[in-house]
Parts: sequence; structure tokens; C-alpha cells
Amino acid sequence: MHRIIDCHGHYTTTPPGVGAWRDAQTVAVAADPDVVGQRGSMAVSDDEIRESLESAQLKLQRERGSDLTIFSPRASWMGHHIGNEHTSRFWTEHQNELIRRVCDLYPDNFAPVCQLPQSPGISIEGSVRELRRCVAEMGFIGCNVNPDPTGGFWTGPPLFDRSWWPLWEAMCELDVPAMIHVSAACNPNFHSTGSHYLGADTTAFMQALTSGFMADFSGLRWIIPHGGGAVPYHWGRFRGMAADNGWDFDGLLDHIYFDTCVYHQPGIDLLLDVVPPKNVLFASEMVGAVRGINPDTGRHYDDTKVYIDKAPLDAEARRLVLEGNARRVFPRLEMP
Amino acid sequence: MHRIIDCHGHYTTTPPGVGAWRDAQTVAVAADPDVVGQRGSMAVSDDEIRESLESAQLKLQRERGSDLTIFSPRASWMGHHIGNEHTSRFWTEHQNELIRRVCDLYPDNFAPVCQLPQSPGISIEGSVRELRRCVAEMGFIGCNVNPDPTGGFWTGPPLFDRSWWPLWEAMCELDVPAMIHVSAACNPNFHSTGSHYLGADTTAFMQALTSGFMADFSGLRWIIPHGGGAVPYHWGRFRGMAADNGWDFDGLLDHIYFDTCVYHQPGIDLLLDVVPPKNVLFASEMVGAVRGINPDTGRHYDDTKVYIDKAPLDAEARRLVLEGNARRVFPRLEMP
Repeated sequence: MHRIIDCHGHYTTTPPGVGAWRDAQTVAVAADPDVVGQRGSMAVSDDEIRESLESAQLKLQRERGSDLTIFSPRASWMGHHIGNEHTSRFWTEHQNELIRRVCDLYPDNFAPVCQLPQSPGISIEGSVRELRRCVAEMGFIGCNVNPDPTGGFWTGPPLFDRSWWPLWEAMCELDVPAMIHVSAACNPNFHSTGSHYLGADTTAFMQALTSGFMADFSGLRWIIPHGGGAVPYHWGRFRGMAADNGWDFDGLLDHIYFDTCVYHQPGIDLLLDVVPPKNVLFASEMVGAVRGINPDTGRHYDDTKVYIDKAPLDAEARRLVLEGNARRVFPRLEMP
Repeated sequence: MHRIIDCHGHYTTTPPGVGAWRDAQTVAVAADPDVVGQRGSMAVSDDEIRESLESAQLKLQRERGSDLTIFSPRASWMGHHIGNEHTSRFWTEHQNELIRRVCDLYPDNFAPVCQLPQSPGISIEGSVRELRRCVAEMGFIGCNVNPDPTGGFWTGPPLFDRSWWPLWEAMCELDVPAMIHVSAACNPNFHSTGSHYLGADTTAFMQALTSGFMADFSGLRWIIPHGGGAVPYHWGRFRGMAADNGWDFDGLLDHIYFDTCVYHQPGIDLLLDVVPPKNVLFASEMVGAVRGINPDTGRHYDDTKVYIDKAPLDAEARRLVLEGNARRVFPRLEMP
């Protein structure tokens, strides 16, 4: 019997001290955009952490039968567009240390993934430093990379731009993957978890496909969340474009993985039909964008295990999707 | 036996005089961003038009068995971000008049849809005027609306903003629908037909869903192209979000239609499985984003009729998708 690893969970149920710290920081930087501020302390007790998880993620793990969640700070709260590089650095350090505390309290249930202190127009070196701190000093197994730190204006460089390369090099050296995941949109054209998340997923995939830059980083691994945005649904479009333009579609699949955060049976069936089983990682992003009950299943929309159980997968493919791929993509994951 | 109406075709094979006119205009406005310029004339003969279509769209209509294509200027060339409002106006007038000539030469094969002279930061009134000219004076049956005239920076107002309402009112009065279709991206983060088109499709849908503004325009009809971007693949996500937030998902389907520009069998199967048949319009966008042969079918990727023929649809649903819905959404379409 295999284990079940959910590769996409965020700490969306943080105790009130987290939001209070961030609110104070946001007020300070709104008053003075150049403020450095200070790290200070975040008032969160171990009991509050336990309470915030026991009634949510841990309860759902038990109910839905997953064993471990690869867990990172709340994505919509990364807010890289807010304030300056110091704002992002202090906030990120706190959020990552909080994730470390979660994993220390529940080492069998969670494995840590970090956010990075990105900030529009700022060198990626600070993010490389935080990645090294998290992985080398705190046992993190991966990171989340925001392809658009502007929050929906897309005025920074694409992921194939050389300015990103120190991060890709550090990831290869440390042997950790990234989930390419935007934060909340501050652009009124976009709904954060509706259009911005899915659009960014497709955008990241296209940046990799058109540039071919990942071929220069043999160990570089990205997870495209939310079932790959629009990519599997338009698999023929992308394969056809690649053939027209001489882009290496199959080679890209040595680097790119898709999670299973698709919240209905036909979507999961399509994902598992078109994407090779070696490129799909089980995930639910539970306690996330959709909280309600799917009338078609009587279960939560984001209980993606229900759809996967019903999908026509052979035993080996099922083992890869539920466990094997996660172990391969996250080699630093320590789990019996 | 029903007819087959392709609701999404662009004049992508224009004679050289079209590009030459536009190149000269682009050079002039690059030299002087405020230049008004002049309309001038576009050197395109009827023979050139015939030649450009006989070897492409008309040949493919015959080969693939479609009867009529709802035809508009090349979307990637709309380029609303280029130059100023005069740039966009002169270019748009020429492009729309060229489409009128196409439909006069081949009235049984094409029906005209116009582009609009949108320009970043400019009132929509000029677009309303051009829409009225095209529909009332030139027999056009619909329009293409660019939800992001900035070409991938999304700094304009969302489609639910009141600044757009004169256009929605004019569309209702004239009883014409809009396809919500961006043009080429000038933002290096986006690949035009890969990520920008699909991201914009999802974005337009979410703007309608979250705002609910379409309920105030009883006859307003939008076609979301490219199979709805990511929407059908994430049907559960959007239905679930709507339930969580009290958005009227089912009511939106009185206004929103999806085309079938999805270039592989599993994608078309999913589209036709989750979206009600009354909301899907046959389309191929042929001679468009993908030009090659799908190894799974031995036919062109964009020969979407092949996938629809194989999809499990009953006769009435098939008639709606291939003909009936287009007649209902485009009531000004005159076709025996």
C-alpha cells in the first residue's frame, strides 16, 4: 500500500497574530513607502497553531485519507507587490519560520516549503539567500516562486530572463523544486484565485516552452499548480504550436509537473488522460480557493482524491501520482 | 441536414497591401506618438483578395465541410496598444471595409464581424460609432471587443466598469454579440496566442461572473473564444467559487457562449461534457495559431470538426453546436 502525499497546501488558517503583524507592517509601509521597519516578533503560540490545524488541515487529512501535506505559507498573502524589499524580507522570514514550527509540531503530517522575499524590481539574490537559509538551515524541501511579483501587472522580467538564473542555479544545487505560484492580484482586472492564478500557470508554462531555457538546467523542476492552468485542456494547441515553432515539448516534460488541483471529475479525467502519469502530482490545495460541497459528489469540491479514485488509472500510474512523483520531485522529503 | 457555421475566423492571409499600409502607419506613429496621420488608401485588389482566400479559408471550408465562416479582421493585428486613437481609427476602418469586401465577393461563405478602434485610455464612444457604422451601414453581424487594449499590461478598466457600458448598450440595441478577444501581446511575459489569449478568455469570464453586471443587459451576448480559455477545464472551481460567493453562475449562461477552438479530442470532449449544448458554438479559427497536423488524427490540429464528429453528442445538441446556436447568437446573420 502506498502513501498519499498532497504536494500543494498553504497555511490558510493562521492564528490572528499573523494577520495582525502583517496589518501593522502594511500600515507602516503605506505611510512611508521606503520604510525599513523591523522584524519584530509575531505573537503566535504553539497551542494556537495546533488549534488552527486540528480543526482544518489535520481533520481533513484524516477524513480524506491523505498522509502528508507539503505545506507553505498562504500564497494569496505573499503579497510581493506590497511595500519594498525589506517589507517582503521580514514578512517572508516570519512566514517561513511559522511553517517550520508547524512541521516541528506535526512532523508526520507536514513537510515545509518556503515563500521567497521577492519584490518588484529587486535582485533575486535576497530570494536565493532565503532559499539557502530555509533549505540548508531549516530543512525545507522546496520553494514557491512568484512569476509576477507585481500582483497582476506583469512588468517584471519573464522567468527565462537571466536575472532569474541565480535562483534556478541555487535550486539545482540544493536539489529542490519550485511551485510557480502567484499571490493575490492587486489589478482590478483579475480575480486572484479565479483568473490570476490560472493565467499565471499557463503563462509560466509558455515562458518555459517558448524559451527552452530549462534545458540548460538539468535538475531544474517546476510544479505548475491548479492542474496546469489552461495547459492540459489545450494540450493539442500547445503540442501543435511546439511542432510549428521547433520548441521541445517532450523535453520540457523532464522539468515540468502538474498538480491535481482541478475540482471536478471531467477535469481530472482530462488531466490524467493527456499528461503522462510521471508528470502529475496529487494535490488538493485544501482549505483554499473553493470551500463548498460539489453537488455531483456530495464531497468538498477540493477533495480531489475522490476524482482520482474514480479516474481510469492503472496501479503503477496511481502510485506515481499519489506518492512516487512527489518523492522524486522533492528528494529532500524525509518520510518513512 | 443542418448547415455548419464556423463562428470564429480571422482574415489572417491578407494581401501584402494590408501589411504595407499598417507598416507605414506604425513607422509614422513611432516617429511622432501624437501624429494624426491620414486614412489614405490601402492597395488591395479584388483578385488579390480572391487569391488569398481561395488557397486558404475557402479551400479548407470545402475540405472540412463547413458552410460559412463568421469572419473578422486578424485579431493579432488589431494592435490597439500601437499609437493613438487616430492610429487605431484609421486602421480599424480599413480593416473592417476589407472584411466587407470579402463578404461581398463571397456572400455565401463569409459573414462580417468588425474590430473596434479601441485605444488605451480613450473613451469607448469611438468604438460605439464604428460599431454603428459597421452594423447599420455595412451589414455587420457582430464585433470583436478587446478586454485589454494595452496588449498585456491590463492597466485599463475591467469589462464591468461603467466606462464600457455605452458599448454594451449599443450592442443590445443593435442586437449583435461580441467575441471577447485580445490582440497580440507587447508584454514579453506573454506569448500572444499561447498564454495571452487563453488568460484573457478566463479573465473576461471571471469579470462577468464576479460582477454580475450582465444581468443588467438582458440581450447582451459574449462569445469567449478558444474554448473559454481555462474555464471548462476548471468548471468545478468556478461553480464552487460562485456558490461560495453568491455569484449567479447559471444566470451568466444566458449571456456567455464558448467556441470550440480546442485542438485535441479530450479537450473537445470535456467542453461538450461540462458546458450545456446551448452555450457552445462551433469554431475552428482556421489558418490561425496552430498550422500543423495532429499526429493523433492525421488532420490539422485546428480541424475541430473532426473532434466534434467523434464526441458523444445527441442529434439535437450537435445541431445546436454546429448551426442553431450561431443563428440565435447572431440574429443578423442572413443565411438560407
